[in-house]
Amino acid sequence: MRKTRIFTPGPTPLMPAAQLAMSKPIIHHRTQEFKELFLETRRLLQDIFKTQNEMLILTASGTGAMEAAVCNLFSPQDQTLAVVAGKFGERWQEICQAFQIPCVSLTKEYGDAATAEEIGEALQRNPGTKGLLIQGCETSTATAHDLEAIGNMIRRDFPEVLVVVDAITAAGCQPLETDAWGLDVVISGSQKSFALPPGLAFMSISPRAVQKMSAAVSPRYYFNLAKELKNQQAGQTAWTPNVSLVVALNAVCKEILCEGLDKVVAEAELMARSTRQGLLALNFRLLSSSPASAATAAFPPEGVSASELSKKLESRFGVKVAGGQGELKGKIIRIAHLGYFDTLDVFSVLSAIELCLMEMGQPVEPGVGVRAAMLEARQN
Amino acid sequence: MRKTRIFTPGPTPLMPAAQLAMSKPIIHHRTQEFKELFLETRRLLQDIFKTQNEMLILTASGTGAMEAAVCNLFSPQDQTLAVVAGKFGERWQEICQAFQIPCVSLTKEYGDAATAEEIGEALQRNPGTKGLLIQGCETSTATAHDLEAIGNMIRRDFPEVLVVVDAITAAGCQPLETDAWGLDVVISGSQKSFALPPGLAFMSISPRAVQKMSAAVSPRYYFNLAKELKNQQAGQTAWTPNVSLVVALNAVCKEILCEGLDKVVAEAELMARSTRQGLLALNFRLLSSSPASAATAAFPPEGVSASELSKKLESRFGVKVAGGQGELKGKIIRIAHLGYFDTLDVFSVLSAIELCLMEMGQPVEPGVGVRAAMLEARQN
Repeated sequence: MRKTRIFTPGPTPLMPAAQLAMSKPIIHHRTQEFKELFLETRRLLQDIFKTQNEMLILTASGTGAMEAAVCNLFSPQDQTLAVVAGKFGERWQEICQAFQIPCVSLTKEYGDAATAEEIGEALQRNPGTKGLLIQGCETSTATAHDLEAIGNMIRRDFPEVLVVVDAITAAGCQPLETDAWGLDVVISGSQKSFALPPGLAFMSISPRAVQKMSAAVSPRYYFNLAKELKNQQAGQTAWTPNVSLVVALNAVCKEILCEGLDKVVAEAELMARSTRQGLLALNFRLLSSSPASAATAAFPPEGVSASELSKKLESRFGVKVAGGQGELKGKIIRIAHLGYFDTLDVFSVLSAIELCLMEMGQPVEPGVGVRAAMLEARQN
Repeated sequence: MRKTRIFTPGPTPLMPAAQLAMSKPIIHHRTQEFKELFLETRRLLQDIFKTQNEMLILTASGTGAMEAAVCNLFSPQDQTLAVVAGKFGERWQEICQAFQIPCVSLTKEYGDAATAEEIGEALQRNPGTKGLLIQGCETSTATAHDLEAIGNMIRRDFPEVLVVVDAITAAGCQPLETDAWGLDVVISGSQKSFALPPGLAFMSISPRAVQKMSAAVSPRYYFNLAKELKNQQAGQTAWTPNVSLVVALNAVCKEILCEGLDKVVAEAELMARSTRQGLLALNFRLLSSSPASAATAAFPPEGVSASELSKKLESRFGVKVAGGQGELKGKIIRIAHLGYFDTLDVFSVLSAIELCLMEMGQPVEPGVGVRAAMLEARQN
């Protein structure tokens, strides 16, 4: 029977615990039941973000939380620095522009990451910068930033700079120590490692970021984080929340923490390594010099169109991979590893790619991709 | 995240359409809504069984329908012939014994099938036999019987013999022409190709089998098929049915027929062929000389314990395969292909077996099993 397998870095496959939770009858959000569940969910998210900071749950996509961070923390007189290493880095610039907040950029080639040293130099060149805007994982190129090195450098050398991290695809699949690394705002979204449908964003906010919120004069209403915070500390939300997704988020956080967060992250890293070995053995070329655990981006072998391969994967096997964005459109495929995936999924998608390449007339030695992935995933 | 994959020949993975249907609010069975759905479901089952015969839906497992066939068609003075090629053939004997119905057996080695010729000879040796009891697929050994040849032979040479087929795992994954092959009773169950939870059995009954029902004197109450038939022709059931499963069965039948029954059967055959090639390349030995599309049964390579391999598949990858039954216990593994499976599932289970064998210290050339399966599944 026809099956569909989604390998995109959001939405990701739904966890059964999420499906079950969402199929429960809806509860009302102005009730004691919801209040307790909501407060518990905020605590569970703190464990996943490894933070004592305040957690906010917003009924919005990750972009909404990115906007909320910018307009609640910064004003038109504030200088910001955005790391632009792909489409999502560009989004920081666009949001700042919309709110007339000055934003200089540290621009990297697609596929490259910015180092702590480069960011330090950029901050030196731009004295008085109020905030760094960065991705934990630049999803458009499947590139990871070293948040540990970057956070530590800023706390040491630029203690006044707020570090605002889009960890939308990074949280839950790459190491993340919000407090230990001094990250002021960390954002994620429901349709990534949390294996839920899109619709909720979460963000942690440090005490000093909370303080800044009262001074910022950028306009905001739906994303008034001070108002949200006051409500959410009491187990409520400022506006009507997506109740079913909150209930499902609660269930999923428990699944992740019960499985063991570090184990879940290690599995994503292993799947990413296996996928890279499998693709390399099939003559793909990796896009990223700092490849992420969330997803793998790669150019197909010489003579193979990425779009044609993607189409064939879908028509032949019901396998949906992501393509490139912006200037990478039609040039790469991206395969996700974040959320409800396991090693056998890696073998599945590689088998599918391999067989499609063979059927497209490519000189593929059958089994070679899966073999390479298998050797990487091997225990002992 | 930990995933579970079930590769047992019942229960099989649930079809999403079934899960969705079962999560609907329950309806009452003494309503017009249920009546219409029930009548439609009986018609859909006729299409899947390729028959104009009456279809009955029983709230019972397949064994219940096997008993129903025996006790509604035969009496203690009636001679029957059972083909015994494994555990489910033995079940025919046990049911006849319970009802004191004489039953001679045509016994085959585990893994072998009875031919039409052998069955013809057995009927010659036992003149006056009233019914043949056989499996379309003997699931315990993953062995298929040639129902076409057997049915045609009986209709030609022994027109008075009723042909009663346990097609519990055969229907929906191997060719089945109830009317064209003159099969009087054909039985299947919800947890097989229908990709539902266990709980319902279905059976088609030819007009001449319906006639015999009134003459049979074996005791029956829950399985009074004459009473069921009268009710079910009117869209009702004699006893309270499993309403949710009937609603889900309706949805699943539509999925199968929409996909195309012949295509679904051809896919199961292809998956079985691919699995066989994969296992052979990994030095497994096939059990059956007439291998089924429903499942593949095989002895592991020399020096590998089937039980140990099964345990490792489950602990390492959450992959559940079936073991042997009766005298085959601990000696073989069985991998299902019936229902909600596709080719990438074949590659998954073979990858898992391969990696487990490697990690158990077996001299496996990595990728060789998946490679062989891939070559079999290759298009063009």
